[in-house]
Amino acid sequence: MPLPPFTAVAANLPETVPFVGPEALVRRSGIAIRARIGANESGFGPSPKALAAIRESAEMSWAYPDPENHDLRTALAARLGISAEEVAIGEGADGLMGLVVRLFISSGDRVVTSLGAYPTFNYHVAGYGGQIELVPYQGVSEDLSGLLSAVRRIGARMVYIANPDNPMGSFWPAAHIEDFIAALPDTCLLLLDEAYGELAPQGSLPAIDTNRGNVLRLRSFSKAYGLAGLRVGYAIGHRQIIGAFNRVRNHFGVNRLAQAAALASLADDQHLLWICDRIAASRQRIANISRANNLEALPSATNFVTLDCGRDGAYALRVLEELGRLGVFVRKPMAPGLDRHIRISAAPEAEMAILEETLPLALKAAYGAS
Amino acid sequence: MPLPPFTAVAANLPETVPFVGPEALVRRSGIAIRARIGANESGFGPSPKALAAIRESAEMSWAYPDPENHDLRTALAARLGISAEEVAIGEGADGLMGLVVRLFISSGDRVVTSLGAYPTFNYHVAGYGGQIELVPYQGVSEDLSGLLSAVRRIGARMVYIANPDNPMGSFWPAAHIEDFIAALPDTCLLLLDEAYGELAPQGSLPAIDTNRGNVLRLRSFSKAYGLAGLRVGYAIGHRQIIGAFNRVRNHFGVNRLAQAAALASLADDQHLLWICDRIAASRQRIANISRANNLEALPSATNFVTLDCGRDGAYALRVLEELGRLGVFVRKPMAPGLDRHIRISAAPEAEMAILEETLPLALKAAYGAS
Repeated sequence: MPLPPFTAVAANLPETVPFVGPEALVRRSGIAIRARIGANESGFGPSPKALAAIRESAEMSWAYPDPENHDLRTALAARLGISAEEVAIGEGADGLMGLVVRLFISSGDRVVTSLGAYPTFNYHVAGYGGQIELVPYQGVSEDLSGLLSAVRRIGARMVYIANPDNPMGSFWPAAHIEDFIAALPDTCLLLLDEAYGELAPQGSLPAIDTNRGNVLRLRSFSKAYGLAGLRVGYAIGHRQIIGAFNRVRNHFGVNRLAQAAALASLADDQHLLWICDRIAASRQRIANISRANNLEALPSATNFVTLDCGRDGAYALRVLEELGRLGVFVRKPMAPGLDRHIRISAAPEAEMAILEETLPLALKAAYGAS
Repeated sequence: MPLPPFTAVAANLPETVPFVGPEALVRRSGIAIRARIGANESGFGPSPKALAAIRESAEMSWAYPDPENHDLRTALAARLGISAEEVAIGEGADGLMGLVVRLFISSGDRVVTSLGAYPTFNYHVAGYGGQIELVPYQGVSEDLSGLLSAVRRIGARMVYIANPDNPMGSFWPAAHIEDFIAALPDTCLLLLDEAYGELAPQGSLPAIDTNRGNVLRLRSFSKAYGLAGLRVGYAIGHRQIIGAFNRVRNHFGVNRLAQAAALASLADDQHLLWICDRIAASRQRIANISRANNLEALPSATNFVTLDCGRDGAYALRVLEELGRLGVFVRKPMAPGLDRHIRISAAPEAEMAILEETLPLALKAAYGAS
């Protein structure tokens, strides 16, 4: 029998996934993962205080979470020096990203992002019928003036920038982002993804200004805080935009353990500092390993290092595939101009030792096959 | 400065919440909750195996969850005798409900539900610009023939039925639902909410038929399984509809601990049987308490009991408010025809004892104020 008709937008969408998860790769390849260093997770783990909060809260798993996310919103607002009405909590930055696209993008509306930037953003824009305009990177950085020109040229309703950037690991100093914001038309929302913000060098995050109605910042507990598995992120912005999430969000969507763990993490600055040190050391370790293999490691303001494999995209893809065969899960940019790179997440020494052992083998196999 | 414009649909939505959470009530009233028996949670708690799974998985909270929800989907499919391609997992039935509305309802499309049924469904329909047609209950049951007539009259694209029903606790035997499905136009999707399905009497859930393209069933780990805090529910249906969730869902949205806990719960049939017994006994206890207070307890196929307060809606609201003042959190239907009732969740004896102590006081105060 026929199915009821999908909406016009949904009917034309592909079944897709912005990222194939490592568990899915294992199911498809049959190869166990020895080093999980592809999703920019933090193998250093969350704060012990967060783990304690999860274990203590487990008993209350029968109770719905607080739909107002009150305690976490309040703690974040105090930390950021803003009002709790200027912070929204969501099921990861990904969940909030979907909601903000839903609030602002109708079918046919134009949206600007960089060619090769975060696929999940593009997925959400397509999911609401938005039309995406792609601006190539300028070297290893997002092209701020190119993005601004595109916004003006096509009358975009939204523009996405990640600072620090994923997948290249680069960053723009705050002043560049502030200039971009000052020049942005009022009618265009900047979605400023700061998922790697805690790992960025001093001076790369603009001061928070929630009076500005056309900037929404996204942050995450998935990266430096090491809680990717629990799904909790937050948005910072004008109270009218933050309030508008209450028109469309799944109010009970942020689970109880995530709220408790994020709150506990936020109170453990010492662990965050320790993590940032570990990540910096791991970035250096990845750079040393690449240098030993005659590969260039790009400077990174994040918890990953992007390596230039030195040849074309097909070669870099073979390197990634060979690493996969050896049980090393990494990812790579696929866009023209970026695709000669692979991207490796900072991780504890056990994973680094496996990388050190396998990278030369993967490079040799990839080279031999070319 | 002005905000960027919202979409036409979003601009007209109110900031709202389908249910105010008990934590929010405490923050507003300053009165601590002694008995949390208003949200149809299971105070009996989840399976000890689920708690063990949470505590064991906590250490891996740094790793993104499996976006394919493979293990849980596979286990559910095996249990239900269907393919894993006929099961979708989401952030609670609420999250899946939002997605299915998004897939099928465009601005102006007509949707049918009962007057006084689940507000979260209405919230999602309004959130995508759908137009809701409300059909009054027939006594304490959803009016199946009235719903069907409304679907035909207005050419509805979707109709919502909960079986067993919330907030009244009634149910239709499977044959009635099957007749409804047989008579439903192909172009209209039945969203059949079976959140209380594990608690329903034998013979009230229709056999699963995933060949039918216009029926999607929703189930939950929040009720009998006692995992409301973790946010995990599932949808059962035609593989083309289940597949279509992959066009729009937040792929990494179902957290790692929820997947592990739900999987462990599913393997603990003994606990589920024990819970169903506890809930049945608690329903009887609530009925006895109401009888002692000269109130009629409606028969229930769920984990709550709806009490007829015997007078009008204003009186029942006062009873609810007086219970609240005494630290007893319950909820009530607000729709005309149903609003003389209050709804009390099954719970352990500690909560039942508090109900027994406070209900006469609340009734007396409510009566005195009238």
